[in-house]
Amino acid sequence: MPALKLIPLGGLEEIGMNMAIVEYSDDIMVIDAGLMFPDENMLGVDFAIPDFSYLIENKEKVRAVILTHGHEDHTGALPFLIKEINAPVYGTPLTLALVKEKLKEHKFESAELYEVRPRQKVKIGCFTVEFIRVTHSIVDGVGLAIETPVGIIIHTGDFKIDPTPVDGELLDFNRFTDYGELGVTLMMSDSTNAEKGGFTFSEKEVRRSFEDIFAKTKGRIIIATFASNIHRIQQVIDVAVQFSRKVAISGKSIVCNSNIANKLGYLKIPEGTLIKFEDINEYDDNKIVILTTGSQGEPMSVLSRIAINEHNILKIKPGDKVILSAKVIPGNERSIGQIINHLMRRGADVIYEKVSEIHVSGHASKEELKLMMNLVKPKYFVPIHGEYRHLRYHTKLAEKSGIKRENIFILENGDVLEIDENGARLNGKIKTGRLYVDGKDLGGVEDMVLRDRRVLAQDGIVIILITIERMTRKIISDPEIITKGFILEETSSEILNGIKELLSKTLRDMEEDTLSDITLLQAKVRSSLKKYFRNRMERKPLIMPIIIEL
Amino acid sequence: MPALKLIPLGGLEEIGMNMAIVEYSDDIMVIDAGLMFPDENMLGVDFAIPDFSYLIENKEKVRAVILTHGHEDHTGALPFLIKEINAPVYGTPLTLALVKEKLKEHKFESAELYEVRPRQKVKIGCFTVEFIRVTHSIVDGVGLAIETPVGIIIHTGDFKIDPTPVDGELLDFNRFTDYGELGVTLMMSDSTNAEKGGFTFSEKEVRRSFEDIFAKTKGRIIIATFASNIHRIQQVIDVAVQFSRKVAISGKSIVCNSNIANKLGYLKIPEGTLIKFEDINEYDDNKIVILTTGSQGEPMSVLSRIAINEHNILKIKPGDKVILSAKVIPGNERSIGQIINHLMRRGADVIYEKVSEIHVSGHASKEELKLMMNLVKPKYFVPIHGEYRHLRYHTKLAEKSGIKRENIFILENGDVLEIDENGARLNGKIKTGRLYVDGKDLGGVEDMVLRDRRVLAQDGIVIILITIERMTRKIISDPEIITKGFILEETSSEILNGIKELLSKTLRDMEEDTLSDITLLQAKVRSSLKKYFRNRMERKPLIMPIIIEL
Repeated sequence: MPALKLIPLGGLEEIGMNMAIVEYSDDIMVIDAGLMFPDENMLGVDFAIPDFSYLIENKEKVRAVILTHGHEDHTGALPFLIKEINAPVYGTPLTLALVKEKLKEHKFESAELYEVRPRQKVKIGCFTVEFIRVTHSIVDGVGLAIETPVGIIIHTGDFKIDPTPVDGELLDFNRFTDYGELGVTLMMSDSTNAEKGGFTFSEKEVRRSFEDIFAKTKGRIIIATFASNIHRIQQVIDVAVQFSRKVAISGKSIVCNSNIANKLGYLKIPEGTLIKFEDINEYDDNKIVILTTGSQGEPMSVLSRIAINEHNILKIKPGDKVILSAKVIPGNERSIGQIINHLMRRGADVIYEKVSEIHVSGHASKEELKLMMNLVKPKYFVPIHGEYRHLRYHTKLAEKSGIKRENIFILENGDVLEIDENGARLNGKIKTGRLYVDGKDLGGVEDMVLRDRRVLAQDGIVIILITIERMTRKIISDPEIITKGFILEETSSEILNGIKELLSKTLRDMEEDTLSDITLLQAKVRSSLKKYFRNRMERKPLIMPIIIEL
Repeated sequence: MPALKLIPLGGLEEIGMNMAIVEYSDDIMVIDAGLMFPDENMLGVDFAIPDFSYLIENKEKVRAVILTHGHEDHTGALPFLIKEINAPVYGTPLTLALVKEKLKEHKFESAELYEVRPRQKVKIGCFTVEFIRVTHSIVDGVGLAIETPVGIIIHTGDFKIDPTPVDGELLDFNRFTDYGELGVTLMMSDSTNAEKGGFTFSEKEVRRSFEDIFAKTKGRIIIATFASNIHRIQQVIDVAVQFSRKVAISGKSIVCNSNIANKLGYLKIPEGTLIKFEDINEYDDNKIVILTTGSQGEPMSVLSRIAINEHNILKIKPGDKVILSAKVIPGNERSIGQIINHLMRRGADVIYEKVSEIHVSGHASKEELKLMMNLVKPKYFVPIHGEYRHLRYHTKLAEKSGIKRENIFILENGDVLEIDENGARLNGKIKTGRLYVDGKDLGGVEDMVLRDRRVLAQDGIVIILITIERMTRKIISDPEIITKGFILEETSSEILNGIKELLSKTLRDMEEDTLSDITLLQAKVRSSLKKYFRNRMERKPLIMPIIIEL
């Protein structure tokens, strides 16, 4: 009997870019295909996706891509993937509806999309997959039970255990425990909040905070949240109705997602509640709520534009209340802080995570994670979705829940976990990594390009133009110096003269055979300038000698 | 009677760079001269300091610089300032000892430094300044009471109200209340934590957490904290002694600060407690504590180097316990997270703010800020040290504490607040701003240079070399294309060919008079490439046409 292979392609060394492969003999199924938003080292990059060359090489084996929910860290790489391997895609209605929008943007609409419902089973090659309802910060999320030749695998997807979900759709305890009774070989579970003690609050807790704020506010209320958080949008609408306010939605993604969710019945908007954004100034201040995005300080969002008074319809005035109903994603603290400063300066009252309870997480905390292990009682355990420290904390919880230490595997992206009748073991690693997407081209940004950008960002660039007579190897004119991001040339004549003197000296000192070897000449110029900049200025610009032969 | 002028030069639109001026007739005193560490927009900058050209212009009026405590956001600009205006500097012993080290680095040791003690009064021009003990995260901090011709001004410095400070030196309630009784015209107070409810925990609370951790740990203990936090260092030493462990200190700044504090009697180290860092491997694991810096993920720190296994003496092994005893400064979350991941991967147990109580703030929370207002009962109030939102929150607290709304001034850097017998009012603004320090030169980085760096960081640079015959205005050879941080030239021949074709076409289409006007030619090349990159790739590199005339 061949071994089953479990290979994570992304999501195990980072938050985001979630993607995993289950492979048995000639059948491969892919679970999720997510993107990751760039960190401060990925200069100028729009986002990163997993390197899925393994799937391209094994294209003919791939039976399907299964999506657990519609967040971009689980679906954002899908258009890139199915352009390469045109496999069928399975997901719940909202997930597929969101994916369709993305595919439209990519002008790739010939994908085979199959809608599934919770408790439905689908045959994927030698696997049978059942979709199991979970609660999360986006509606219509599912976990997976995968029947394989070596036993049952449970994949939780992203989840929390919300006892009072806004749409009333509970996590399907019964299906998880039924599989637990049958015997589960392996569980993969969401580690995002494994550092956090206790239980994650129910999404409904946010409603109480909203009610408090609405009751006290006489002016306009402006709420920024994530465009995909349909539950949150529903709660804003419900509380607005309760307090007789109309709702105007602004921002491309949140308008699009609300329309989709409304059409599919996931969002219930009483008639007469929505008004056109263009009409907000026709209502009394205490009669409207404006729902928008930009809670992370994104520079082009509606919220950013109103903060710096560059929005032509919505102008902040004293009495306005702005609620940032979202978590602060690490790295965004400063830009969010700036937006809050601007809004307050224009007279708005701003409510944000630090000063009030207006957001809850979508991910399970420690107690919920242990509960999930109690329900499923897996033999082997692989923590997924997290950086190493999250996986490590999740591992401790698994041990506490009775899973044997040697049956727990902290994998890295590309690790191959093999399971057969003799048990589970790590066996090798496939090539994986990140592809950086910048603008239209996939993989347009290589590591070397990023390295250059980091140097350029640090100290700029110095270009040295040297013209040489091709035949005589004589330098024709004084070298020209051009800089960008290094010094202000107009006010730095002393430094420029220093460079010129140094260059003339360097060139004078050169042997004739150096002048005839372009590469050597460039190296000499570069090294003498490098030393000069370090000693004289403690800086390291990118130095670029350009030799022109005539 | 002339009006007194209060002018903040820094610290009111940012966290850091604290500096203010009090001016009356021919007398100016400067309070603090701090730096700010760069945010993500200040690419390649080491730090920023306030533009103090106003003080240079009024050099002959400046009677003294008064320092409230030794943190760099209050003293880091001092070397730059006193190189320009050689005024006497007043501060407490530890503050001046730390400043002396900085002056040594700047090779400027002729400064006039005057040591003062709490409750001491000093005459500065027409002002009399009394130094008043406050508690903060560095020892020997003071607030100021300034007797001026228009009444008393209280400046709190950075403070918290710690009922059980590690060195037993309480905030001097009596002096603050005595001035409160006399009648205080204006108070300036620290706004850093004005968003935070309740009381800030005492520094001694950290000791309990340390004791818990020490009691449970059998391996080595490695603690990273801020080099200037002498209280924290004292507590580590005390708990180490309690648990019979030796202490090794590693890292230039923390070794230097500990020596200074020890010499001045602010740090008490029982004999036989300190061991040499080089000797750590000669002791049993349960017999040592290693104290170091790097809690913010600084790439060259000891902690970073041990995390990636590049330290030649200290190698992490399973059983090691690492404590990050510091707050996470916004913007550093990701680099700190990466260090935690690396340390855990090597087997260390890592304790950090998110998972345990191993740090307390040095700044007063809401209840303490109100208490300070009750002690001092000022007529006018100016919140200092904070971004706009902190100042705004502090203003609300002031109103609640009974200060009239119209007597509260939220100032911006450079604003001139005038006070005379008719009251206080805003009256004009002086030129101010930030000077960026990068490497050795002051003000070496101008805003335009930073703008270029941001563009370079985003999409790199494309250099186009065009050679023209000077007399005939004919293009001699094919344009050459050189890129950095844009594409990998080796694998992007399609794009390069596209650029070449476009360039030939652009140059062919040009009139002869365009070719004779270099600026026009550059503009044409730039605009046609710009359009091409935007449409074809959705990118915006810096485009740099270089025209060589021969």
